[in-house]
Parts: sequence; C-alpha cells; structure tokens
Amino acid sequence: MASFAIGVLKESAPNIQIERYTVPGFKDLPVAAKKLIEEYNCEIVLAFGFAGKAEIDLQCAHEANMGLIQAELMTNTHILKVFVYSDEAKNEKGLHDIAKDRSIKHTLNAIALMQDKEMLTPFAGKGKRQGFPDEGPIAR
Amino acid sequence: MASFAIGVLKESAPNIQIERYTVPGFKDLPVAAKKLIEEYNCEIVLAFGFAGKAEIDLQCAHEANMGLIQAELMTNTHILKVFVYSDEAKNEKGLHDIAKDRSIKHTLNAIALMQDKEMLTPFAGKGKRQGFPDEGPIAR
Amino acid sequence: MASFAIGVLKESAPNIQIERYTVPGFKDLPVAAKKLIEEYNCEIVLAFGFAGKAEIDLQCAHEANMGLIQAELMTNTHILKVFVYSDEAKNEKGLHDIAKDRSIKHTLNAIALMQDKEMLTPFAGKGKRQGFPDEGPIAR
Amino acid sequence: MASFAIGVLKESAPNIQIERYTVPGFKDLPVAAKKLIEEYNCEIVLAFGFAGKAEIDLQCAHEANMGLIQAELMTNTHILKVFVYSDEAKNEKGLHDIAKDRSIKHTLNAIALMQDKEMLTPFAGKGKRQGFPDEGPIAR
Amino acid sequence: MASFAIGVLKESAPNIQIERYTVPGFKDLPVAAKKLIEEYNCEIVLAFGFAGKAEIDLQCAHEANMGLIQAELMTNTHILKVFVYSDEAKNEKGLHDIAKDRSIKHTLNAIALMQDKEMLTPFAGKGKRQGFPDEGPIAR
Repeated sequence: MASFAIGVLKESAPNIQIERYTVPGFKDLPVAAKKLIEEYNCEIVLAFGFAGKAEIDLQCAHEANMGLIQAELMTNTHILKVFVYSDEAKNEKGLHDIAKDRSIKHTLNAIALMQDKEMLTPFAGKGKRQGFPDEGPIAR
Repeated sequence: MASFAIGVLKESAPNIQIERYTVPGFKDLPVAAKKLIEEYNCEIVLAFGFAGKAEIDLQCAHEANMGLIQAELMTNTHILKVFVYSDEAKNEKGLHDIAKDRSIKHTLNAIALMQDKEMLTPFAGKGKRQGFPDEGPIAR
Repeated sequence: MASFAIGVLKESAPNIQIERYTVPGFKDLPVAAKKLIEEYNCEIVLAFGFAGKAEIDLQCAHEANMGLIQAELMTNTHILKVFVYSDEAKNEKGLHDIAKDRSIKHTLNAIALMQDKEMLTPFAGKGKRQGFPDEGPIAR
Repeated sequence: MASFAIGVLKESAPNIQIERYTVPGFKDLPVAAKKLIEEYNCEIVLAFGFAGKAEIDLQCAHEANMGLIQAELMTNTHILKVFVYSDEAKNEKGLHDIAKDRSIKHTLNAIALMQDKEMLTPFAGKGKRQGFPDEGPIAR
Repeated sequence: MASFAIGVLKESAPNIQIERYTVPGFKDLPVAAKKLIEEYNCEIVLAFGFAGKAEIDLQCAHEANMGLIQAELMTNTHILKVFVYSDEAKNEKGLHDIAKDRSIKHTLNAIALMQDKEMLTPFAGKGKRQGFPDEGPIAR
C-alpha cells in the first residue's frame, strides 16, 4: 500500500520528503507514527494496515486506531489511518483494488490537509469514499 | 451539516467568528478539533460526522467519540459531537431532517454553553433530544 | 436527578457550596466535570446522566464513563458517576424511584468521601446498592 | 476481600504499613488508587472489586480496569486488580472461596513485586491462577 | 515464551543486555514495560502473554494491549506484544509451537527495529505472520 502512496507523492508533490517506517504489525503503528512526527519531523503521517478476517484482527485494528488517535492528540498532527479489511471484497483482486484506491485517495487527502484546513471543504458531505466509488450526498 | 450550523450562527450570534476545518473521515475529527482550539483559538467546537450502516462505521464513530472526549479533557474546552447514524431513519429524507434538526439544536447548545454553565439548567431532565422531537421528562 | 442531590446537600451538609453545570448530553460530562474541578475549585463532582434503551445510548454511557475516569485521574479528584439506564425498571415510575434513590445515596457517598478515605470502610463488601435495596454480603 | 489481604500482610510482611481506601463502586477505584500512590505514598496498591452478573457490571469492571492501567502508567506503580465476577462460581460459597484465594495469592504477588522484578520469574508460564487451583504449564 | 526469546537474543545479538520482569497477569504488563524503559533504560520491550479461552481472558488481553500502546506513546519506545490465545490451536502441542514461533519471530523483529526503521521494509505487505507460516502477498 505504501508504494501506491509513494507513487502519488512523487507525481503530485515531488518536493515532499518521504520518511518510511515499517513495523511488524498493526498495533506497532501508533508509536512508529509518533516517532516519525517527533524524531523525524514529519508534518503528516499515513498509516497503512491490512486486517485479516479473524475477530482478533478487527480487535487489533480497533486498538491501533485508538492509539493512532491518541498519537495525533499528543502531537497535534494528522495521521491518516489507511486500513483495509479482508472482508471488504470477495477475492484478492478486489482487496488489491480497494487497497490501491484507498491509498491513492488518502495520499491526496494528506496533501490537501498539509496545504489548508479548508482544502477539503468543497467535498464535505458529498459522500466521498476511499477504497470504493463515491456514494454521493444524501437526498433532501 | 456544517451549513445548517453556520446558518444558525449567522442569525443567532452574528458576532461569533467561525473557523471551519474539513477532514477526510470520522477518526480525523479529534486532532482537527484540538488544533482548532489550540492553534486557531476556538472557544468551542462542533464536530459533524455521518456514520454509515456497516459495523465498522459504528466502530469508527466510537473511536472518534473517545478521541473527542480526550481532546476536550486535554483542552478544558467543549466539543459538541454532532453525529448522525444511517440507521436512525428509513430513508435519505429522514436522515436529512435528523441531520438538520440535530445540527441546529447543537449549535444553539454551543451558544448557550459559551454564555454560562447554567444556561441549559432549565432544560435538564426534560427529555430534550437533538435530531428528534423532545421526549419530555419521566413521569413520577 | 440533580434536585434530589441538592436537597440532600442542603439538609446533610448545609455549609457545602454547590456549583451546577448542565450539558446537552452524556458525552459532554467529562470536560464539564474537569472544568468544575479546575476552574470552579470543586472538591468532588456528581455527574448525573440518563441513558435511553438504544444500543447507541449504552455506548454513549460507556464513552462518558471512560472520560470521567480519565478526568478523575488527571485531577486526583472523585467524580461520582450517577447514571440511570432506562432498562433498569419496567415503567417511568420505577425509573423515577431508581433515579431518586441513586442520587440520594451517591450524594451521601460524596459527603463521606470528602471527609475521610475510610469513611465508607464499614460498608465495604456489604452488598450496598445505589438505586435499589442493598443486596447484603456474600454468604461464606 | 481486603480483610483476607490484611491478614496475609500482617503475617507475611508485618513491617509493611497499610493504607485503606473504600469507594462506592468499581469505577471509583482508579482515582482512589492514584491518590493512595501520590497522596499517601503507597508503593503498591491492591484494588478489590466484585462484579455482579448484569452486562453493565462487566462493562463497569472493564472501565475500571482501563482506568487502573492508566493510573499505573501515570505513576509507574503496580496496582494489582483483584476482581471477582459473580459468574465464576455456582453459589455464594464458591464465590467466597474464589475471593479468598484470589485475595491471598495477589497479596503474595504484591509482596513479591515490591522485592524484585524477577521474584515471580520462577512461576512464569507455569499456569499459575488466582482464585482457582493452578493449571500447570502447557505440554510441548 | 521468554526463554525462546532469550535463546534467540543470545545467539543473534549476544551484545544486547537483557532485563527480565515477571508479572502476575496480563494487565500488569503495561506498567512493567514502562518501568523497564524508564527505570531500567531498555531500548525495546517484548511483552509475553498467554490468554485463556474465557471471554474475560480476551477482555484482559484487549485491556493489556491498550495499555501497552499507551506506554509506547508515553515513552516513544516499541513494545512488541507477543500474545498467544488458547483458541489458536487444537491442542497444547499446537499452542506450544505457536508460542515458540511467535516468540522467535518477534524477537528477530525487535532486533531489526533497534537497528533501523526501514529494516523490515522488504517484508512489508508480504503477508508475514508470527506464530504461523507466512501467508504471502495479496494477488493483484
């Protein structure tokens, strides 16, 4: 998933310097993200993870999410949580496509957030989705 | 949902200065709220979110809520959590009405909280609801 | 529920100064409690809440509890969590009685905790309940 | 349960000074434990609780545990969580026995932890249980 | 499980100094890990635990994980969570093998993380598993 993101960054924001950090599992992401911010001076972090189908995998993803939100609050820095769950598609091809789509869209979100806090305002409430086609806004 | 809130603010509290911050998803709200308080000097925050019907969406809303409460405790500042869940109504029209009603009432709550900690006391235990008609107090 | 507590306080501890703070919902309690402690110099806080029957209401109560415990740890101050759940009684009269009993007993608990950390020791393990008649100790 | 612990302490570690703190319920334990550490200079804390059978009781125990772990992290001090759940035995006699066994064993654990971080190493992976007979190690 | 790790460390990284800390249960791991980092100057921690099959055991593991992630964030230090769940294998032999495999692989992960944040990058997204054979990457 990181390679999709790196591809987008090199194309859309070639001046951004990238720091990569690979951890053994989901639950190791929060401290790695915090170290990227505090020790490697990253302005924003993309955290990639793939959750298997066992209940324990969903639990791990939940724990990682809670820790990532805490890391964001401790550093006042965005950490985009780019997780794919194995039950989101019927086969590996489908999962691959979701992972690619979600990685690319969240990388573009990260670039937008770094520019201005209102950069994504035109898309608010428009049913934007990462990993799937957009759903569109709710009818009145 | 933010547009309903902005409408109320412009009418009921025209002197209030509004800062808007749009994030990709639910779980990005806590750090954005904290940044609004600490970097943009906001006195109160309204956090809007719409949760889909998948179990993972409810999980996300839970994680966002936990993070928002933590952000409140770290800043001693109210962050009103204005979330709509897709299973709260039968169709999109119903969801739209809930979102509108909840946004407007919580914006009025925010204005009240900024004035005085007892401003809402007359309504305590009166079964006030945001998003739906009030339920009224419990019979003795 | 607050009015039951205020009644008890006026009768049993007339010298105590009361600060009241009303918030829109459950999840707003933690930051309000922390502000009462840090900005209004309260020595102890009673947090009242009424949870509806929807699953989301129980979730809210859980999130509020987690936040209140965190607020206690950040301030080294007791915050008694006086929550009533709508499924605790069959009708509104029953809920009213539970709310009254629980509010009164927890207010007395608060008065005891303010006096001495061993004040409640004679009642430890005695099956004391708030909102219901006591259950008594476990038989050997 | 505290009385079993006090009995063990008086016998096995007569020089230890005991501070007792009784709270109304489970969720009041974390802040009381933190106050014992920070205001009463306790080196270790034993937190006793008895959880009823309702789902809300298990929730309370979970919230208390999360708060106790947080209190430990904020103080770098062990707080042994000595909880008994009413579904652990068929009758009150059984619960009484579990409560006694668990209290005694955890008090001995507390004494060991105060002496040295390797004091319990000989028992690691040996299937030691508190409240029940030991299970023994896993066969290879 | 610690003995497998110590074996690997003595062989693969003989210059590393090992500090061991044994606690009574799962939920005591977070504070022990934090003390190892702050009081014993450990650069990385391996936390071993074995969860029984009762629902309460899974709850304990969840609480321990949340606390360990928090300890990591408070110290900017990795704590690898090496947990085995009794439902992961059909018999004790199977559990023993999982515990051994997971301990060894996570010890190697710890050694890699201490060297460089990109040390594990060649294995990212390759379906690496600890405790089981690797799953391999997702097909495109």
